[in-house]
Parts: sequence; C-alpha cells; structure tokens
Amino acid sequence: MKPISVDRERSAERISRDIETLAGPSYTLTSEAIRRYAYTEAYESTLQFFTGELSRLGFTVTRDPVGTLVARNRPAGEPVFGVGSHCDSNRNGGKYDGTMGVVTAVEVCRLNEEHGLGLPLQVISFLEEEGSGFGQMLLGSRIAAHRVTEEQLREQFRAIDDGRSFWEHARDAGYEPERWRECARILDDLVGWVEMHIEQARVLQDTGNRLGIVHAIAGYVHADVVVQGRGDHAGATPMDFRLDPTTVAAECVLELERLARAAGRGTVGTVGEIEVTPGLINAIAERIRFSLDVRGPDDAAFRGVAADTIAFAGAAAARRGMTATATERQTLAATPLDDRVVGALVEAASATGEPHTVMVSGAAHDTMCVADRVPSAMVFVPCKDGISHHPAEAASAADAALAAEVILSAVAALQGGAGPAASAA
Amino acid sequence: MKPISVDRERSAERISRDIETLAGPSYTLTSEAIRRYAYTEAYESTLQFFTGELSRLGFTVTRDPVGTLVARNRPAGEPVFGVGSHCDSNRNGGKYDGTMGVVTAVEVCRLNEEHGLGLPLQVISFLEEEGSGFGQMLLGSRIAAHRVTEEQLREQFRAIDDGRSFWEHARDAGYEPERWRECARILDDLVGWVEMHIEQARVLQDTGNRLGIVHAIAGYVHADVVVQGRGDHAGATPMDFRLDPTTVAAECVLELERLARAAGRGTVGTVGEIEVTPGLINAIAERIRFSLDVRGPDDAAFRGVAADTIAFAGAAAARRGMTATATERQTLAATPLDDRVVGALVEAASATGEPHTVMVSGAAHDTMCVADRVPSAMVFVPCKDGISHHPAEAASAADAALAAEVILSAVAALQGGAGPAASAA
Repeated sequence: MKPISVDRERSAERISRDIETLAGPSYTLTSEAIRRYAYTEAYESTLQFFTGELSRLGFTVTRDPVGTLVARNRPAGEPVFGVGSHCDSNRNGGKYDGTMGVVTAVEVCRLNEEHGLGLPLQVISFLEEEGSGFGQMLLGSRIAAHRVTEEQLREQFRAIDDGRSFWEHARDAGYEPERWRECARILDDLVGWVEMHIEQARVLQDTGNRLGIVHAIAGYVHADVVVQGRGDHAGATPMDFRLDPTTVAAECVLELERLARAAGRGTVGTVGEIEVTPGLINAIAERIRFSLDVRGPDDAAFRGVAADTIAFAGAAAARRGMTATATERQTLAATPLDDRVVGALVEAASATGEPHTVMVSGAAHDTMCVADRVPSAMVFVPCKDGISHHPAEAASAADAALAAEVILSAVAALQGGAGPAASAA
Repeated sequence: MKPISVDRERSAERISRDIETLAGPSYTLTSEAIRRYAYTEAYESTLQFFTGELSRLGFTVTRDPVGTLVARNRPAGEPVFGVGSHCDSNRNGGKYDGTMGVVTAVEVCRLNEEHGLGLPLQVISFLEEEGSGFGQMLLGSRIAAHRVTEEQLREQFRAIDDGRSFWEHARDAGYEPERWRECARILDDLVGWVEMHIEQARVLQDTGNRLGIVHAIAGYVHADVVVQGRGDHAGATPMDFRLDPTTVAAECVLELERLARAAGRGTVGTVGEIEVTPGLINAIAERIRFSLDVRGPDDAAFRGVAADTIAFAGAAAARRGMTATATERQTLAATPLDDRVVGALVEAASATGEPHTVMVSGAAHDTMCVADRVPSAMVFVPCKDGISHHPAEAASAADAALAAEVILSAVAALQGGAGPAASAA
C-alpha cells in the first residue's frame, strides 16, 4: 500500500479553525470553560455546525431517535466505515476532549473527498459521552448498544440541572425516546470503527510519541474499603493501646502500589479518596474509608490486584486487631479492540515515519460500546501535561492532522483500496 | 504515716449524689448532654451549688475577677493546699469531665472536717476549661497564669454563641475583667495543688488500675504536612508515570508510628486528619494534607519524633519526585509535675492497697497553668472505655472516693501532719 500524500498543514489549519470555531460563544454555556451537554442550545449549535460541514461534503446527516448525530456518504444498508467521537463536554471542559475527534473525523471525510478515494464513511457524534447533562457517561453509545433499560431512560436518569427525566428532556428537544431501541441501527452497516481522541494522560507527551494506537480499553474495579478501628484520645492513648485504622490504610496504599507494579500488563491501581472519621488532629481515627480504582486491559490481572488488595486489607487489619470490609461499586471488563483495525492503523502510522506507539486506554470511551458489534480501534493524540476535563486542556492540530491521515490510510487499506495516489492514478 | 481510715462507701454515696444533682435540668443547657459554660445560667447554678456545699463546711467562697470559684478555710495570706478542677463541660459533654474533680475536692474538704484534720485547704473551680463558651481551652487558669493578653480578652476571644467578646460577657455577668491580672492572686497562697480528673483514655481500665498518679502532662507538636504530587487520570496514567502523593503520606503514617514507638518515654504520634485533593475515585491525588499530633512528657523525645517525621516526609517525597512541606500549628512544652507531691500521692495510694500506677496525662489540664508557680500533681480515675466529651462518659464514684482519701492523706503528709487517726488522737 502506498501512503496517502496528504497536505498535513492544510489539514491542521482546518482542524484548528473548527476547534476554535466550536470554542466560540455560540457553542458553550459559559465563557470560562467549554460547557455543553445534551439538549442545550450550545450543543444543538455544535451539531448544526457538523451538519453543515458534512452536508457540504455530500453526506446525508441525520440524528438517531435520541440525538446522536449520524452522517453517511452511502445509502442506508450499504457497508460503511465509522469514524467519530462525541462533542459534548465536561462541565468545566476544554476545547479538545471529544470535539477534536469529531473534527478530525470530518477532516478524514474531507480528505476522502479531496483525494477522490470514494471510501464509504459514516461519521458518528455520540450523545452525552461525559455525563454532564444526566450524570450518565457514554449515554448515547450505551443506548445504541442497548446497555440501558427503558426504566432508566424514562425514570432513573435525571438532569443534573432540573431533576427532570432524560425521557422528558429528549421529547422536549424534539426527539423520540420511545424509539430508543432503534438507535442500535446506527451500528448496523459499520464494517469497522475508529475513534480519535486526546489521550487525557501524559504518556504520549512524555515518551515523545505523536500518536497512540489503542489496542484495548481498560476495564476496572471500583470499590471502597472501610477499616474499623477505635476512636481514642490522641494524647492520652499510648501506642500499644491503639486501634488506629489509618495505619492499616497506609499499608494498603503501599501494597496496592506494589501489587499493581508486580502485575504489570498495563495494570494500574489508585487510592483517590480517603475519608477519616472523625478527622480531628487530636483524635485517633475511629474508622477510615478509602477508594480503590484498579484498571487494566487484562481482566485477570486487574481483578487479581483488586482482590489481593482487599484480602491484604483484611489481613493487615486483623494483624492489628481491627477489621476491614470492602464494598464493590462497579466492575467493568476490559474491551479488547480489533487486531485487524489496530494493525492497519499501526501500518499506516509506520508509513508516515512519525513516532507512534501501541497502547491501552485507561479511560472509558464510546468505542467500548461500539466494539460490542463492530471491529474497532482508537487513535490517541497527546494532550499537554495530560490535562483534560479542564479549560487548560490543549492538543496540537498538527497531531490531529497526522491522525486524520493515518485513519484515512488505514480505512483505505481495510477497504482493500490503496492510497490516494494509487486511487487517483 | 498512718493511713486515714475513711468510710469510702459514704464518700462514694456523697460523690454520686453530687454528680447526679449536677446532671439535673438546672445545671445543663440541654437534656441530651451536659452542656454548661461560662456565664450561662446552668454554669452559675453549678457555682452556687458548690458555694452552698463549701459554705456549710465553713469555707469562705469567693470568685476571682473573671469568675473562677475560690473557697478557703483560712484567711487570705495564710498558706493553703489547693484542690479542685473545673465544672464547665464540653458542649456535648458527660457528667464527669471536670465536675467529678470539683465534687471530689469538696469531698476532701468534708473528710478534712469530719476527721478533724484541720488541714488548710483551698478549692478552685476554674472558669471555662473546655472552651465551650469562647473556643479557648484552659481560659480561667491561663488568665490566672497570665498566659493571655488584655487584647485577647477584650477583643479576640469571642463567644461561640453570639460573637460578642469575652470582656463584654464577663461584665454582663457582673465580673470585673479590667482586674483580670489580679486573678493571679488565687495561686498566691498555695503550697501545693492536686487536681483529680477522669483519665479520658482507657489505660487505667485496661490495666486494671483504680488510680493514676500523674507525674507529667504531655507537651505536643501540632503540625500539618502537605505533599505536592501531580493530579492525573487514575486509569490512563501508568504506574511509572505517577507522582501520587498518597503513597508518601502512607509511608509517613507508618514511619510516625515506628518513630513514636522507638522513642518510648510516653511519646505518641497520630495522624488524625487526612485531606486528599481532589478526592475522586478516578483521579490520582494532586496533593494530600495530613495532620501530625506528636506528644509526650519528654520534650526532647516528642519534638524529635515530630522533627524526624517531617524530615522523613521531605525525603520520602523527594525519593518519588515530589515535595513535602510542614507547617507548625502549635508547640507546647511538657509540664513536669512536682516529685514531692507525686511521691506523697503514690505513698498514700500504696497505703490503700488498691491498684494504682504512675502515668502521664496526654490531655491538657488547668494544672499545666497552676504548675507554673505551685508544686502540683494530678490524680486520674478510670473512665469507661476511655470515652469522654460525650454523654456516654462514665466513671465510678467508688474510684473517686478512693481518690479523695488518697488526696487527703497526701495533703496531710505534705503538711507534716499524720493520718486522721493520729490527728484525732
């Protein structure tokens, strides 16, 4: 396969222009951050923007029954390759998370047109990935993957702003939530799917790579551990008379770190919440709660670290005459991505000569739901210092342009076509 | 010295009766706990109760210029031995903290009278030990020891209830705060001082001792340590890319425990507050703050543990590429008590044949201020499970009666007198 000789600078300019346009006052609910979520005016304006861009490229742009945007350059029923992401934001968000993936998908469509490749494409911008509207992450893709219930949509999922149901809000916005099961059709014709996204971590930046080809999305165990000690006077209680649960928690923090490192295979473990009761300088804690976030692409590895940490907590507490109990919040299996799509992306990235790596996504993405049914992969671009979900979020349009080129080449290869030079020949 | 043959059951009955009386509705601001503090009606009623009891025993009862109660059985200028404590309570307090010490001091006076010992005694009930009125602990004894400034009394010390100054409240209650320096006179004639108090910890209970003779009141270092890490995505950041400050804090918790044990000499160390920022299950902490409470009767030992822990935090943070900084809140030197008074109490306790021990007070007491000028000691009695500052607080009147007997004997011995049998002979 011959590489497609894309004018990356022009791509970068267009991507940059679109990103800046969508950071304008019409596209955010506040000037202090990018804040947009389902069924707001800022969100509708953003969908309108993409509708305009894609219509100009000859795409037929529609919405699914709850508002996920779908644009195709082939009639329904014909196989297409999917590209896209989401364009809602975290409430205190930046310009790049999600939006840059849709903008880059549009650029892939432009290049397809300009280079006369004629690749069959479908762009998707999933509704409500961040959960800023209803507190539910990956909502559009979960609806498409039927990972929700009607009861949840009708009753349980409620707007953060006014407490009204998702169902009511969707209807008020002109959608037909009663047809939510039909949202699955947006995946019906997909022969493959690639989502481009900022990394939201610092690995690419710190390793000097411009692209990360994602071969798996981490699963996770979220749990809480409570160590029950005995509240006593910090001054009046000799060291040998104490049942101080902070010491058990300290041992667990260090053991989780050790276990995660020992497990390898991309496993990571974090204690992000610590709550001491009563939490007074002069009182030995009565109890301590800490959270466990253990993740990785290898189910056995990350589940093992979580289980071992919880078992360690029980033993460490018992050694000190206390008890520790763990409560699971949520466990989600890892999502392995498709070898063939990953391979095509790696090959296309290699052809550019630019530094890239194969990696795991530690964060959740809509692609987890798409991959249920469609051979999928993701492409990450670096973001400055790993900062995301924050107005300071920054990423390079040049990297996104490189990603667009790589995705285009990979789709062409997967479709059995050649690079654009070949196609144009 | 012959032991005084006290009818302990009668003493216990009287102590119990007084404790229950002072738990009645006239003596607390709420029925859910004992709540009384300076210049409230409940507090004034309590002082009136003691005034009545001590007047009946022939004591002259006065108040110092801010409201500390002083009762003597000798004219001013003659040497007297001081006994007492405080009778204000924690806002959610129990019946025993402080009050049992004053009640027991009154019982000492009764026994002195009944056994015809003729010992020169002065009872003090210090104003506002708990700080429930103005947020200032040991206020009455600090005023007597001139450990406050006029500025503090006039302006800075403000009522928790209404924000008005201590000064205003004292005047409204009929006192003369402008004469506060004269409060020092309440210590002028004291040749010794013994305060009886509940232990507020579980050492006496758990070691099966009925009395603790306190030879020192712990000093302390209160400080905060902040470890600055780097907030990153808990899922997307590999173990080797992290600057997770919770790991440094964990090492410090365990090192503090190790150092306090190694230091011995009654040194204790506690991390009672832990604050993680941002404190989300899926976010590696950006920073963590934890408190240090390091105490003991040996200044060099507890200060050394605090300093070593802080130095360890800096080194542990540096080893992991982070920084740790410590800020001192307050450091207070230990208060060694008087060997002769302690010795007399130990001898008197030994003479009873009841189990007792010599110990350190980890908590602060008015005796810290008295000991500036007067040879002092304390006597602790067990409290159930170490619970204090809570309505569930419980202590035994029989133990308090034993304490009264021991204090009486010790004072008699220190005054050069003999036991009551000898005196009566």
